[in-house]
Amino acid sequence: MTPDEFRVHGHAMIDWIAGYWERLGKGGDGEPEFPVLSQVRPGEIAAGLPLEAPEEPEAWAKIVGDVDALIMPGITHWQSPSFFAYFPANGSGPALLGDLLSGGLGVNGMLWATSPAATELETRVLDWMAALIGLPAGFHSTSRGGGGVIQGTASESTLIAMLAARERARRLEGRVGAQPGPASDESGGAARPVQVSNQNVEDRFVVYTSTQAHSSIIKGAMVAGIAIGPNDRRRVRLIQTDERLAMDPRLLEEAMETDRAAGLIPGYVCATVGTTSSGAIDPVKVIGAICKRHGAWLHVDAAYAGAACVCPEHRWMLDGIELADSMCFNPHKWLLTNFDCDLFWTQDKASVTGALSITPEYLRNAASEAGAVIDYRDWQIPLGRRFRALKLWFVIRHYGASGLRAFVSEHIRLAELFEQKIRDDERFEISAPRSLSLVCFRLKGDGEHGDQKNNALLAAINASGRAYLTHTVLLGADGHGRVVLRLAIGATMTQERHVEAVWELIQACAEVI
Amino acid sequence: MTPDEFRVHGHAMIDWIAGYWERLGKGGDGEPEFPVLSQVRPGEIAAGLPLEAPEEPEAWAKIVGDVDALIMPGITHWQSPSFFAYFPANGSGPALLGDLLSGGLGVNGMLWATSPAATELETRVLDWMAALIGLPAGFHSTSRGGGGVIQGTASESTLIAMLAARERARRLEGRVGAQPGPASDESGGAARPVQVSNQNVEDRFVVYTSTQAHSSIIKGAMVAGIAIGPNDRRRVRLIQTDERLAMDPRLLEEAMETDRAAGLIPGYVCATVGTTSSGAIDPVKVIGAICKRHGAWLHVDAAYAGAACVCPEHRWMLDGIELADSMCFNPHKWLLTNFDCDLFWTQDKASVTGALSITPEYLRNAASEAGAVIDYRDWQIPLGRRFRALKLWFVIRHYGASGLRAFVSEHIRLAELFEQKIRDDERFEISAPRSLSLVCFRLKGDGEHGDQKNNALLAAINASGRAYLTHTVLLGADGHGRVVLRLAIGATMTQERHVEAVWELIQACAEVI
Repeated sequence: MTPDEFRVHGHAMIDWIAGYWERLGKGGDGEPEFPVLSQVRPGEIAAGLPLEAPEEPEAWAKIVGDVDALIMPGITHWQSPSFFAYFPANGSGPALLGDLLSGGLGVNGMLWATSPAATELETRVLDWMAALIGLPAGFHSTSRGGGGVIQGTASESTLIAMLAARERARRLEGRVGAQPGPASDESGGAARPVQVSNQNVEDRFVVYTSTQAHSSIIKGAMVAGIAIGPNDRRRVRLIQTDERLAMDPRLLEEAMETDRAAGLIPGYVCATVGTTSSGAIDPVKVIGAICKRHGAWLHVDAAYAGAACVCPEHRWMLDGIELADSMCFNPHKWLLTNFDCDLFWTQDKASVTGALSITPEYLRNAASEAGAVIDYRDWQIPLGRRFRALKLWFVIRHYGASGLRAFVSEHIRLAELFEQKIRDDERFEISAPRSLSLVCFRLKGDGEHGDQKNNALLAAINASGRAYLTHTVLLGADGHGRVVLRLAIGATMTQERHVEAVWELIQACAEVI
Repeated sequence: MTPDEFRVHGHAMIDWIAGYWERLGKGGDGEPEFPVLSQVRPGEIAAGLPLEAPEEPEAWAKIVGDVDALIMPGITHWQSPSFFAYFPANGSGPALLGDLLSGGLGVNGMLWATSPAATELETRVLDWMAALIGLPAGFHSTSRGGGGVIQGTASESTLIAMLAARERARRLEGRVGAQPGPASDESGGAARPVQVSNQNVEDRFVVYTSTQAHSSIIKGAMVAGIAIGPNDRRRVRLIQTDERLAMDPRLLEEAMETDRAAGLIPGYVCATVGTTSSGAIDPVKVIGAICKRHGAWLHVDAAYAGAACVCPEHRWMLDGIELADSMCFNPHKWLLTNFDCDLFWTQDKASVTGALSITPEYLRNAASEAGAVIDYRDWQIPLGRRFRALKLWFVIRHYGASGLRAFVSEHIRLAELFEQKIRDDERFEISAPRSLSLVCFRLKGDGEHGDQKNNALLAAINASGRAYLTHTVLLGADGHGRVVLRLAIGATMTQERHVEAVWELIQACAEVI
């Protein structure tokens, strides 16, 4: 494809995307053109695709024509203003153009030398964003030991923080202090820790998070070799939560003390600011103080909620963050930046690079050897990396700090509005304290029958194609798990009328079932 | 940014990229507009960037104007036809438009349900590509236990294969068979394995690769908790290579036997098809047979060279691949597909998902519970994922199988041409058998003086801005490491005149030093 052909096809692709966004934006005004949740059956898209690659080149018109014909029916429209499922994965024109430019430049920023601008812009926009959400100086690149980096996802940040914590524990704990005892493969909670005979730090390193934390903490422990499966609790502790579904710090400290007494190393705590199920906010300050007492690494996973901290009135959620060793949040969730863009900051970069750095001859170069530059490959799992800072730079400059604050605030206002509608309708109840733009609610009703009603409600909403919500299970006042619907506001195009429309849809579906 | 504004700014960005590619393409005809290797000093780009984010929105013209003014001097031009460093990270118009479309759709394909087309197209194009490079049926999704997935990078594939291998070893080995003995922290090669007292599979699982393998294998072992640092050889064995720099399978089997006898589990072998330093090709068939005898997982890392297997005449490199459990190659290196796009196939998907699967309530859905679909989140480290199959689909259809073969073949022809020039000039020598499009060469000369000459040559070439090469160290006939220059051909725009030009440049620089 020559540059001239690229111009023609590129303009057409830009126009297709602009048109797609316009068509999506019309949702909420009557019957939407696209069902928000794709309604195809398994295998239906595959059935339209040839079994073999073409031997000869195909015409561009035919290729892009197949996007409409074969692909679009199988798209779930995350950018629809009526997408309220999971957490948002929003985006914006400026971000997409930054992403496009990144692809056009096609640089690999694995080392400073392989594109100095990719590294230095990333460092600077991470400092910008650190200031915008109120992170203290220790997380800025201008500090002695800290700085930020763009990861793909919060799962990777969780894992990297865990590896850095283990690396630091090796340094601090050395190889002594374990209490000898017989090896055991039995699972045990904090109250009955396993006595391990191997004195390596690796075998005594324990990870803590709440029962409400994201699955990526356990997955990270599986990758790191700390757990051998999702249910292995020998060195993973899930701390119970309080009535607000936030981690109970008293139980955390008890677990850490018990483990330390048993010769284990309480090494890593992941606190969540904005849990996936309900948006609960763990008390960072109290947890941070406990971590300091026990020498544990505190990672704060604010993947979703961190975006709200661009507004000073929401920064209380990060109160105590100066006690954390690392934190992350995802502009690709709720801050107008196309996936993937997770921001990870640490106050202890030496432990991060200590866990991840290895330098073969073919990567050696003068700038790196001199220690004058950052090589971000040592801050991440992969070697290669895209120039993702461009899209974030475009977003921050195009919207300005004021625009980012207005964007987030409006979604929170809409969530308050929706919450009030739920409270005003006696058929429904709020299932957890509302946090930011996530509302958890359900049709009243106990036991299995209540769950069935809510499952049916969710199925009816999603089958309508007019909105997409997902569910979770939260403990009710009676201590039993209950099916709960989640309405997460955050798509870039979501406006008040879309929230009004989904509320009407919910009422209509509730009427029928 | 409204859809209409996006149209205007999008067209301009497309034009900017097309113009950039045209300007790059003129390299080789006299003085290039851009130095291929950025010549800025550390901190120079950062110095041009404001210390704080803007409070108010900035004009789009100012933002994109700063790309030229502030960013471009710090770009190392990976897409330049005179980029011969590392391995290529090429791309193409069709790939970039697929990437753009992916961003415009903005879907997250973590689950089948969150965009069925993203999963089903990915499965199909992986089957297409498996057929194009000659992978046997067991790697296709239509087999009982196999299939493919797009990862970010080969580093992630290496790690995931290692985790799958460990998962399978747990299943196969259970928890018995270790020989008791005192714990030891001493490093030891294959000849002196460590006796471990802990009977867990995790503590006895040993990883093997060659001394020439990519650094990501050791990094993967560090992440997985198998090694505590780059030099920890307790459970990582680097097998010596033969005169062609390929793994010596006899030494591999000896190491595995020694380890097994010591109660360890020879669990994972990574063979390289196309090493980074010299393009050496490990003998997959012999290694595969050894792995079968010992029950070890064989992963074949063909990150760079795999692309060449679209040509039947190069498929001998994968001879024996039916004995492998997994393999990967990167269309984002040498097959016209923008970063990131690493293809990973396995014949044992149950072990992959066994190592990575965890299902919290908020991700449950009917299609997944029915087992009727693939959820690719269980094939990777992160949860979220972009719709990367689009760009690969566009590339395969736009070029056709015939076009891909022609593309790769031409680069190999150019490498042969360059190799001949080196052989015809008595000042130079070829430093390793040429493999595909990578030529390793050096100015003749032993000892430190010889290395200094070659370092000076490399520095002169790269300082000229007219080409970019990198180096490695390879063992000479005398058993000493020698600095060697690598010329890797693979940028999309590289033509014969660019290879002629770099040869003239090399001669001119050699003349001066």
